[in-house]
Amino acid sequence: MKKVIGIVLSAMMAISLTACSSTTDNTAQTQSESQTTAAVTSQAKGTEAKGTEEKQKPVKIGVSAPDLTNVFFIQIKEAMQKSLQNPEDELILLNSKAADYVVTGCGTGQGAMLALNSFPGVICGLVTDPSDGYMFAQINDGNAIAMPFAKGFGWGAELNLEYAFEKLFSEESGQGYPRERAVPEQRNKKILDGVRENNLKDLITCLKGLDQDLVKGALSGEKFKELFFANCKDASILEYVKSLLA
Amino acid sequence: MKKVIGIVLSAMMAISLTACSSTTDNTAQTQSESQTTAAVTSQAKGTEAKGTEEKQKPVKIGVSAPDLTNVFFIQIKEAMQKSLQNPEDELILLNSKAADYVVTGCGTGQGAMLALNSFPGVICGLVTDPSDGYMFAQINDGNAIAMPFAKGFGWGAELNLEYAFEKLFSEESGQGYPRERAVPEQRNKKILDGVRENNLKDLITCLKGLDQDLVKGALSGEKFKELFFANCKDASILEYVKSLLA
Amino acid sequence: MKKVIGIVLSAMMAISLTACSSTTDNTAQTQSESQTTAAVTSQAKGTEAKGTEEKQKPVKIGVSAPDLTNVFFIQIKEAMQKSLQNPEDELILLNSKAADYVVTGCGTGQGAMLALNSFPGVICGLVTDPSDGYMFAQINDGNAIAMPFAKGFGWGAELNLEYAFEKLFSEESGQGYPRERAVPEQRNKKILDGVRENNLKDLITCLKGLDQDLVKGALSGEKFKELFFANCKDASILEYVKSLLA
Amino acid sequence: MKKVIGIVLSAMMAISLTACSSTTDNTAQTQSESQTTAAVTSQAKGTEAKGTEEKQKPVKIGVSAPDLTNVFFIQIKEAMQKSLQNPEDELILLNSKAADYVVTGCGTGQGAMLALNSFPGVICGLVTDPSDGYMFAQINDGNAIAMPFAKGFGWGAELNLEYAFEKLFSEESGQGYPRERAVPEQRNKKILDGVRENNLKDLITCLKGLDQDLVKGALSGEKFKELFFANCKDASILEYVKSLLA
Repeated sequence: MKKVIGIVLSAMMAISLTACSSTTDNTAQTQSESQTTAAVTSQAKGTEAKGTEEKQKPVKIGVSAPDLTNVFFIQIKEAMQKSLQNPEDELILLNSKAADYVVTGCGTGQGAMLALNSFPGVICGLVTDPSDGYMFAQINDGNAIAMPFAKGFGWGAELNLEYAFEKLFSEESGQGYPRERAVPEQRNKKILDGVRENNLKDLITCLKGLDQDLVKGALSGEKFKELFFANCKDASILEYVKSLLA
Repeated sequence: MKKVIGIVLSAMMAISLTACSSTTDNTAQTQSESQTTAAVTSQAKGTEAKGTEEKQKPVKIGVSAPDLTNVFFIQIKEAMQKSLQNPEDELILLNSKAADYVVTGCGTGQGAMLALNSFPGVICGLVTDPSDGYMFAQINDGNAIAMPFAKGFGWGAELNLEYAFEKLFSEESGQGYPRERAVPEQRNKKILDGVRENNLKDLITCLKGLDQDLVKGALSGEKFKELFFANCKDASILEYVKSLLA
Repeated sequence: MKKVIGIVLSAMMAISLTACSSTTDNTAQTQSESQTTAAVTSQAKGTEAKGTEEKQKPVKIGVSAPDLTNVFFIQIKEAMQKSLQNPEDELILLNSKAADYVVTGCGTGQGAMLALNSFPGVICGLVTDPSDGYMFAQINDGNAIAMPFAKGFGWGAELNLEYAFEKLFSEESGQGYPRERAVPEQRNKKILDGVRENNLKDLITCLKGLDQDLVKGALSGEKFKELFFANCKDASILEYVKSLLA
Repeated sequence: MKKVIGIVLSAMMAISLTACSSTTDNTAQTQSESQTTAAVTSQAKGTEAKGTEEKQKPVKIGVSAPDLTNVFFIQIKEAMQKSLQNPEDELILLNSKAADYVVTGCGTGQGAMLALNSFPGVICGLVTDPSDGYMFAQINDGNAIAMPFAKGFGWGAELNLEYAFEKLFSEESGQGYPRERAVPEQRNKKILDGVRENNLKDLITCLKGLDQDLVKGALSGEKFKELFFANCKDASILEYVKSLLA
């Protein structure tokens, strides 16, 4: 079973408050206009979450589902600085295998979801409640979710997201929902992978075709570099990122 | 303001019942496993909906929002026969300008949303409630929505979808939500269009790279041919479709 | 068909912002801790909403559903001052026929719903989305709703409440949902009325049994007096209220 | 911490299917028109759930939250036979301390919630999602919930209810949400208890005022008698029930 890192409640609450206040507060516009993103990374099965003092390190942490709320939401603060139009770093993390799962979002989640699904190597669902989390994992078996960080963000919203994470990672993904439909759902997932492989250019071609300053800006976060250089498993992406950041 | 055709309640109810029963009924599996899709088309501004006797024709019909529920959901029955992995015909309708808006869905809506967003020329949101409909139109200004036709499909679901349509088409799209954020949201929409233009191959290249029998099958519906040949505005797509169906 | 007054969007937005900010702002606690209530009143069928200059008057106004958003939410500001434990004034308005429908709420809506349903002469539903509005009107045919003013109150919440009102009052109530179940649903409504008639003491007995300062406080709003004395149709309630306010 | 018994998934699924099919199936009308109710009982703290072979016994079972899904939904089958207008048996179970918590529901949950709240000794919330479950327990600290068994009952609905139960019973109730508001919320709960104590007649008076055949019918279930006679702690209620069933 894939092991993923989780989200600490207080961090999620921070998002909630920021997102929420952005509907009333002019000074918060740059934040809510931006995309909140966290690349969640994994480690070999069985590795447990470290103590709080180590949680700030952008290393890959393996946790079991019950520990999800004890670890942290990588890059949240940093990600809040990035604009909706810069999903490139998550894509690079996914495509280079530096991260196994990406958690992102924006006001309604639709913008972040659309941005991620416009790049190769990702299947990003829009997850707004716990049963969405479970069903997206079991039916669609993607590697990214976008969540709403302003829509519906009043009381209970931080609970809703916490519960959604719990259920997203509660069982091995891709087993089908309802279970008896696993076979056609797994077949659909493979066909979708094939269609995306066919329809989208490869990641480096995509990135080179975009405004290079924009891509460079998306990679300027400190956490991105730490995560990427420690975990990148794709030589050509490594070379491209190095050349861009040089 | 864009004029779009709408959905007749009894048709929506039919979807609801089919989707709902598919969770309990073995014989309905092929239906709920398939994708429910409707291409909604538009006409010149100001043209009003015709009488009921003409509504069965797959012509483009312009209606104002209050009339939405008086017209019909093109292709619903037909679409129910098509599998989730065949979004090609909607893409062709959109890309050839034969339709202005595509309404689609599946069990949770995620699969249909992912399928559409894997093709060029489309920005497809996941719309699950009326405020989603309004906000997707105003913030993301896309040209397609996917809706859940099994998730949450009990009492009130046909109302929920009807209301979502009402609000999706209640005002000219792309005006921003909240209104004061129209400028960054319109800018994000343009950036997203540019990223998708850059990252995705053109439609004919995409289609030619896929299994041609699969594409051909997706275009075999009677309504597709009627809609497409009457409204296609793109010569190269017309030629490709003709060659495929020859 | 019952005609009811509606809710102006900007007022609803004001609630949303207050409720929303109360989750983060210490100074707003007294507001979100309090109950937000509006007594909506009706007039004879056919009477139309007056111009905006008259809308601030707490008179009973009849409006058709499409005009709902053009009139105002009586007592909102005032109601925000009242605490959750003081539902007495709405009950008096309903029982004395001074109002036909009461709209109330609190953080999740549960507290306000429980408070109202603990008094005679009211059937109060918890309405959280547009289909709830429609189904509560058609199935339960009550005379009050409680809505959540903090739960889920982020982007889209003011739309959600506006749409819920639209659908609550979109058709004559008590016609059943689905329609074919009107007969048992109407029978259940009558049985419920009988049970409440049997189980709850009469309103004046209830009120006299409570702390009289608390009841007096609940009636101290300026709008309450205007609404009540202009519209009260019950002599004994009139006498009790006069004695209390003397 | 209160210990409560839980709900077995397959039983919940059974409700879902019945409720769901009732929207399409004429023959299921009597079921969905009826109320689905389960009285959940508790035992002294620390007592653990027994093995599966004993789970069918209507004894009071104490389970910790993680075990919730391993025990059974008492009376579900039986409860499906009872009509919405007969909440008397749950009220008797609660008032006689034979049960600590009642779980009930109907099509939208509103009818069952209204029925319970029309009797003394109960505070019944309408719980439609997991965060509702958590917040109702922490804010309102009631002893009953009503859930929708037809509204929204498509895919994911059995997950939604299961998750709602998990969160309803995940922590000791009445601790406030958000936590810093525990004091006013606990005060409101006491005021509500006082208002209900004042406004509603005592249970036996209520029951004697109703059609005695109707009350007798509500108590005719086999599980009710087992639960009641094994656990009743109120002598006058015991006497009344005995006389009624004589």
